[in-house]
Amino acid sequence: MPVDVVVHSDLGPLGLLIGTWVGEGQGRYPTIDPFSYSEEVVFGHVGKPFLAYRQATTNLATGQPAHAEAGYLRAVAPGQVELVLAHPTGIVELSAGEVLAHPDGLALHLASTAVPLTATAKQVTSIERRVTVTGDTLRYQVAMAAVGLAHQHHLSAELHRRA
Amino acid sequence: MPVDVVVHSDLGPLGLLIGTWVGEGQGRYPTIDPFSYSEEVVFGHVGKPFLAYRQATTNLATGQPAHAEAGYLRAVAPGQVELVLAHPTGIVELSAGEVLAHPDGLALHLASTAVPLTATAKQVTSIERRVTVTGDTLRYQVAMAAVGLAHQHHLSAELHRRA
Repeated sequence: MPVDVVVHSDLGPLGLLIGTWVGEGQGRYPTIDPFSYSEEVVFGHVGKPFLAYRQATTNLATGQPAHAEAGYLRAVAPGQVELVLAHPTGIVELSAGEVLAHPDGLALHLASTAVPLTATAKQVTSIERRVTVTGDTLRYQVAMAAVGLAHQHHLSAELHRRA
Repeated sequence: MPVDVVVHSDLGPLGLLIGTWVGEGQGRYPTIDPFSYSEEVVFGHVGKPFLAYRQATTNLATGQPAHAEAGYLRAVAPGQVELVLAHPTGIVELSAGEVLAHPDGLALHLASTAVPLTATAKQVTSIERRVTVTGDTLRYQVAMAAVGLAHQHHLSAELHRRA
């Protein structure tokens, strides 16, 4: 995207997310073996009050592409955000949340309001995301309820801004 | 993405979509003035039976960013596809469709099975997409029912593969 586009003022501290982030994370869920992954996350903007978000991960044990997701983070009111996100597994995530006070950066807490599925997708019933940015470090945690199991921790990662 | 990844055989003729497409389109809807736009579409793959899809348009009259969308086109059975797509307007699109017989390329017909919305999004109740690829030309038409109006034509565009 053009580098001369001004970040929309409604994005406020969400502007700290803009850029490319790389790092590693760990995942677990009762139905699968724990796994580690490398990840690249891109937050872009076009001067409007939303960020375009996409990420892709690679399984560190196999070197194979793992998860991916793509969508938009919307600044809908001061401190209030919405997330719309598509997953290649056939699920879409609609979440609402807030930008939280953070001494030295940004903190976000998002919880799904709906997780609609295509006809062939595995059941996921809730997704919760916590994201912090401190300087050039982005950390996140994802919790999920899926395939009939209780909402619980699924992913955590630490990424660093790519220069 | 790595250039040495083999296209998944389940993608079949959908592999013709892989690449970057640029061109122009026209939009209309009873609630807005007709408009023309330039567009860039990217279909990527990572060797799995889905394509990562994203596009962004620029309003030709104003030079300003217009629409964008991002998601995944899934090959779920021979000739059968699903689409999961997020829009920065706060809507997500879940569609099902088929790969149609086409003498010299690819034809796709997709109809939404659900169009879930965030709390602040404008109402959209159906989205239908027809896509053809003939050689290095991709054409599409989008019909939509929104803000209480009947399902009707909304967008048409002709794009060409970028070398």
